[in-house]
Amino acid sequence: MNIGLDMMGGDFAPLEAVKGLQLYMSEDIRTASIFCIGDETQVRPLMEEYQVTSPNLHLVHAPEVIGYHEHPTKALKEKPNSSIAIGFHMLATGKIDAFLSAGNTGAMLVGAMFSIKPIEGVLRPTIATIVPKLNGGTGVLVDVGLNADCKPEQLNQFALLGSLYAESVLGIENPKVGLMNVGEEEGKGNILVQATYPLLKENRQVNFIGNIEGRDLFNDKADVIVCDGFTGNIILKLAESVYDLTLQRGFASDAYFSRFHYENYGGTPVLGVAKPVIIGHGISNAKAFMNMIGVGEKMIESQICAKMTDRFSS
Amino acid sequence: MNIGLDMMGGDFAPLEAVKGLQLYMSEDIRTASIFCIGDETQVRPLMEEYQVTSPNLHLVHAPEVIGYHEHPTKALKEKPNSSIAIGFHMLATGKIDAFLSAGNTGAMLVGAMFSIKPIEGVLRPTIATIVPKLNGGTGVLVDVGLNADCKPEQLNQFALLGSLYAESVLGIENPKVGLMNVGEEEGKGNILVQATYPLLKENRQVNFIGNIEGRDLFNDKADVIVCDGFTGNIILKLAESVYDLTLQRGFASDAYFSRFHYENYGGTPVLGVAKPVIIGHGISNAKAFMNMIGVGEKMIESQICAKMTDRFSS
Repeated sequence: MNIGLDMMGGDFAPLEAVKGLQLYMSEDIRTASIFCIGDETQVRPLMEEYQVTSPNLHLVHAPEVIGYHEHPTKALKEKPNSSIAIGFHMLATGKIDAFLSAGNTGAMLVGAMFSIKPIEGVLRPTIATIVPKLNGGTGVLVDVGLNADCKPEQLNQFALLGSLYAESVLGIENPKVGLMNVGEEEGKGNILVQATYPLLKENRQVNFIGNIEGRDLFNDKADVIVCDGFTGNIILKLAESVYDLTLQRGFASDAYFSRFHYENYGGTPVLGVAKPVIIGHGISNAKAFMNMIGVGEKMIESQICAKMTDRFSS
Repeated sequence: MNIGLDMMGGDFAPLEAVKGLQLYMSEDIRTASIFCIGDETQVRPLMEEYQVTSPNLHLVHAPEVIGYHEHPTKALKEKPNSSIAIGFHMLATGKIDAFLSAGNTGAMLVGAMFSIKPIEGVLRPTIATIVPKLNGGTGVLVDVGLNADCKPEQLNQFALLGSLYAESVLGIENPKVGLMNVGEEEGKGNILVQATYPLLKENRQVNFIGNIEGRDLFNDKADVIVCDGFTGNIILKLAESVYDLTLQRGFASDAYFSRFHYENYGGTPVLGVAKPVIIGHGISNAKAFMNMIGVGEKMIESQICAKMTDRFSS
C-alpha cells in the first residue's frame, strides 16, 4: 500500500512530521510505502538528521506550501506545486492509496470533495471524530463540523458512514447507532432529529438503538453518535476543553482523561469520499503524525471506501 | 416577600424539601414568608420532626400531587388541588411573589406559560442554567431545552433575558453575551446563528462580544451564552456528565469541578414570564431546596420581572 503524507502541514511541520515518521518506522514491521510530500530543501536535511531512511520512504518534492489562512479553493488553484495539491493529484491518479495532512483544513476538504469526489449515492461527505469511552473502547461522533445545516437524509447516511468506520477501522462489531437528542423518547427534539428518527428506525443497514442525550457521549449506549455538524462541532470542542480542564486541575495522569489528548486520535477522517483522506490537528506532534499514518493504513487495509461504495450502491 | 414552595415536588420530597427549609431558616436573618404547599398529612409531621417552625412559614394544604410521568396540561386540569396547580393559582392571584418546585417539569412550564403568561413582547420564554466559570464566577447558558427549534429573533431575546438574569440575580455588571457557534468569525455557523449574529450586533440592550465555541463554555469570554434549546440541552447534559466523570475518576474533592453539582444551582429559572418561576432538579436534596429558595428571593428582590417588562416595552 502507498500512503501520501503532507510533510508541510501543521504548526510544527516539517519537524514533527519527520519525527512522526521516525516513530512510525521504529514500530513493528512496516510494509507500507510512504510518499513524503514536501519541500525537499527542508524535509531532506531533517530526515537525514533524524536518520529516517528506508527503501519504503519516498520523498516527493513540493516547493509550495498552502498556509493556514489562505482561501482553500484559490490556494489549491494557484499553488499546484503545494504539498496538498500534489497529494490530491497523486491520490486521484492512483499513485497513493490515502492522503494525510495536518495542513489547511479547508483545502483538505475542497481537495477531498473535488479531486476525489463523493461516493455515488452519498448526499454529503462528513467528518468524524473518535470519542474515548469509559468502558475502554472508542466511539465515533459524526458529523463534527463539515455540515452545519443538515437534512434528515444526511444524518441517516452519516449513521451508515460512521458505522462502517467503527466496524472497519475501530473493529467494533455491529456498532450501536445513537441519535443525539434532548430526550430518549421517540418524538423528542428539534424538527431535524424528529424527522431523522423514523429514517434511522427503518434503516436496515445500521443498528439503531434510539435517541441518546448529551450525558451519554462517554458511556456505552452508542458506538456511533449521529448529529448535525453544528451540534457535533460544539460537542467536540466542549469535550476537548474538558481535557484541558482536567490538566489545569492537575489530573494529567488520569488514565481515562489522558485518552482525550488529540494526539491519540490520528486525525479526522473524511467519510463518504471515494478514497481515504485524513485531516490532522493543526498542532500535530510526532505521535499524532504516527497515529495518523496508522489510521491511514487501517483505512486502506479494511477497504473502507470500497465497502462504502458497495453499501451506497445497494 | 412571599415565596411559594412546592413541598411535594422532587424524588425525595417532601422530606428533602422540609430539610431544605430547615437549612434555609438556619442561615442569617430570614425575612421572607414561605408558603409551604403540599399534603398537610405528610408535611406537618415532618416539619414538626425537624423542628421547622417559624411565624414566617405557612403551610398550605394541597391534597393532590402531580407525578413525574403525568401529562402536564391534563394533570393541571384534573388536579386543581395539586401543589403545582395551587402554587400557580397563588402566584397568579398575587398571594405569593415567586413559585418554586422540583416537581413535574412539564407542568411547571405549562403553569408558567398559561397561569402566569409571557411578558408582553417576549416571543418565547426560555429556561436558563448556571455555568461555573474557571475564574470563580458564574455564567448563564440560555436556552437549555424549552425551545428545541428557534428563530433568530428568539435567540436575540434570550440574550436580553439572560443578561437581565446575570445582572439582577448573579450580580454581573454589563454581562458579555456570546453566541454559541462553530467558529469565531462572523458568517460562521448554521443558518440560525448566521441570521442571529447581525441582530445581536445591532442590539443596543446587550453587550454582544461575538461568537464563542464549545471550548469557551467555562472560560470568561462570555457571561451569557446564547443558543437554541436543542444545542443548550445537549451542552447542559454533557457538562453535567463531566461532573459525574470527575467523581468516577476520583476527583470528588476538586474545588472547581465540585461547583458543577446541581445542588448549587438553585434550580432553573423560567425567564420571560411575568413572575418568578423556578424549576428544581428532580433529584433535589436539602441543599438544592435551600438554594432554590435563595434564588427565588433574589429574583423577587431584584424585581427582575419588572425589569424585563420594562425592557421589552421599550
